[in-house]
Amino acid sequence: MRSSRTPARGVLPRGFRFAATACGLKKNNRLDLALISSDLPAAAAGVFTTNLVQAAPVVLSRAHVRRSAGAARAIVVNSGNANCATGPAGTVAARATAARVARELGCKAEQVLVCSTGVIGVPLRVERILRAVPGLARAVAAVPGAFRQLTRAIMTTDTRPKWAAASCRIGGKRVRLLGCAKGAGMIHPQMATMLAFVLTDASAQPRTLQRALREVVSRTFNSITIDGDTSTNDTLLLLANGASGAPRVARKGRGYRRFVVALEKICRALALAIVADGEGAKRVVEIEVRGAPSSRAAEQVARTIAGSPLVKTALAGADPNWGRILAAAGRAPLSKKDAFDPTRVEVRLAGVTVCQRGREHPFNERAAHRRLLRLYVPIVVDLKRGTGLARIWTCDFTADYVRINASYRT
Amino acid sequence: MRSSRTPARGVLPRGFRFAATACGLKKNNRLDLALISSDLPAAAAGVFTTNLVQAAPVVLSRAHVRRSAGAARAIVVNSGNANCATGPAGTVAARATAARVARELGCKAEQVLVCSTGVIGVPLRVERILRAVPGLARAVAAVPGAFRQLTRAIMTTDTRPKWAAASCRIGGKRVRLLGCAKGAGMIHPQMATMLAFVLTDASAQPRTLQRALREVVSRTFNSITIDGDTSTNDTLLLLANGASGAPRVARKGRGYRRFVVALEKICRALALAIVADGEGAKRVVEIEVRGAPSSRAAEQVARTIAGSPLVKTALAGADPNWGRILAAAGRAPLSKKDAFDPTRVEVRLAGVTVCQRGREHPFNERAAHRRLLRLYVPIVVDLKRGTGLARIWTCDFTADYVRINASYRT
Repeated sequence: MRSSRTPARGVLPRGFRFAATACGLKKNNRLDLALISSDLPAAAAGVFTTNLVQAAPVVLSRAHVRRSAGAARAIVVNSGNANCATGPAGTVAARATAARVARELGCKAEQVLVCSTGVIGVPLRVERILRAVPGLARAVAAVPGAFRQLTRAIMTTDTRPKWAAASCRIGGKRVRLLGCAKGAGMIHPQMATMLAFVLTDASAQPRTLQRALREVVSRTFNSITIDGDTSTNDTLLLLANGASGAPRVARKGRGYRRFVVALEKICRALALAIVADGEGAKRVVEIEVRGAPSSRAAEQVARTIAGSPLVKTALAGADPNWGRILAAAGRAPLSKKDAFDPTRVEVRLAGVTVCQRGREHPFNERAAHRRLLRLYVPIVVDLKRGTGLARIWTCDFTADYVRINASYRT
Repeated sequence: MRSSRTPARGVLPRGFRFAATACGLKKNNRLDLALISSDLPAAAAGVFTTNLVQAAPVVLSRAHVRRSAGAARAIVVNSGNANCATGPAGTVAARATAARVARELGCKAEQVLVCSTGVIGVPLRVERILRAVPGLARAVAAVPGAFRQLTRAIMTTDTRPKWAAASCRIGGKRVRLLGCAKGAGMIHPQMATMLAFVLTDASAQPRTLQRALREVVSRTFNSITIDGDTSTNDTLLLLANGASGAPRVARKGRGYRRFVVALEKICRALALAIVADGEGAKRVVEIEVRGAPSSRAAEQVARTIAGSPLVKTALAGADPNWGRILAAAGRAPLSKKDAFDPTRVEVRLAGVTVCQRGREHPFNERAAHRRLLRLYVPIVVDLKRGTGLARIWTCDFTADYVRINASYRT
């Protein structure tokens, strides 16, 4: 998690420019609007929230990813207002934003992707965005400082910017990938939304990109959970502009696997950075369920444990409370044929075996407590019934989470 | 919720006796063992946890409810240890407890039901229970003070005892129902379990009782949620000993409906008392979803809202944050045909319409905030897509919940 530093110049993928500004959606003149532009038309892929309630920019960007047909030119993002549950005016605002950016860049509106994050249900003051776009379009620059500004402009209640970089070789040429994200904590009062953008100078068809993204997302962004709430604005976008000059990444080619590995590296780093920065979180917890009758069963058990407030509050207290983990596993929504035998289960907390055959395995409580105080806590639950395996990352659940989320909206 | 008073003598159903003692499972000589005995053989019905991990007493009592065949004689309950995840020794302990009570009462072991609540995964010191049983069996008395002691002996982290009474007329004779419960908060570190006992001097066949109980439970105990965790020990028992002399309650008879109404009154009062006493809870929240395509869809949406930490922390702050309610509704696990249109949804918080057609309806924020500070907060979400209706009760989610649950186990 290289969150605290500005990236070195060498990690920037070629042909992308960045700019950020304060257009007045947030108070105190904080950065709240950012633009990413690509010098060359870029293939775009996207993964969006599955919530039935979808913000206007999500609906728009999903359509634009499809219609841009390998020729996306920009992503424009505002923080401070999610433009969700804003009625027809919200749709008009998202469209106007795309059109305005397109005019400045000399492209079509569908070549521009739009993202918003912030308060839900409050009309977006889009005129502030429209007024600021020309300045942004002039300011975009291919320098690390500008990227750094972008990572700050998309923050809502995140305590720090999050970015990650990777590279790989495709056909002997170096290809760069750079990603940034903002928190998924469904965080501040009405502040929702995970946003993540990955940019690469690799060349690829949109279909190939989309496939790579889906493959990686299930093991990274879709394997983290903070409080189980799903935002109305979650968006992950991947742009590939080919500026590296490397040959096209093809699904059956040798470069594809290398590209996916690099992409996964970035997505995992960003996903874990989001968990680590979850509202009030003190530690990242990896929940691995193995020995399950199927991968699906393993995932259901892991998600149920990761979603249990009782387990997560115990972790906040570094309490080796394996009974709660067992009890959470027992209420996972498993089909009958996937049921496991609780009297065979083994639980290890931060490397300490605390439960065997479904009952207490003698352990040193103080030593276990000390290990649970670490920043990264692995939990292994072995159901001893098969080969199914899943891994989910979450964070502990602290009084700070409640404090932050209970504070009055205004 | 008549939790703070001792019941009047007149509300005790005839033919039941109560006693409680401190046998040494809890510290500081606190009450931790109780006995309910029936002078006459009683029909028994029970509803038990659906968790895959089931405590030894749950497994035993489920079998005994069936095998007692209309002739149950006693319920013995300990707090301080859930006798769960305790291996074969746990089963031996539960059986020994039933056998010991049976010996004192001069009946068979399967006429005795056993319940435990408290810490999970720690061997039960059953010898302390066995030693105390003879004294309890001698002490049982049909007096309000003894019942009151029982309601205290079953508490774990509950802050107050919970009981409720009702009566109805069957064939011109007065029939009494009396119930008590302990908290469902999956509450203290490793303290789990909702326990509830309802006693009546009505006469009924076990099958009729079971049917009445199932009917009522779905609308009461199974419609509350505190933190979504399901205990390994949850048990609700209903005993009917016929001591009122009223004619038998029969499924097709006129008395059945009246009996169910009285039973539901008790179960709802106990369920709401449990929610009101949820860990750290400041208020009870009723979530009504109406206008859903089906009752099932209504229930799924209501449960998703009730389970959302974001919604519940906002309620702790009396924050009229309807965007979170809409977002939670949007992620309910609905089938495609049950999907609703977010742009038609209406939300009312404590009587204030805050959202119409899926977007903000102008309201006075301060007035709404004041109404949300009340102890009982009704929330109505109208999906405007059908006639499906469901009602779920929950509580707010405060920093105290986290504080209590994060505290180190020992």
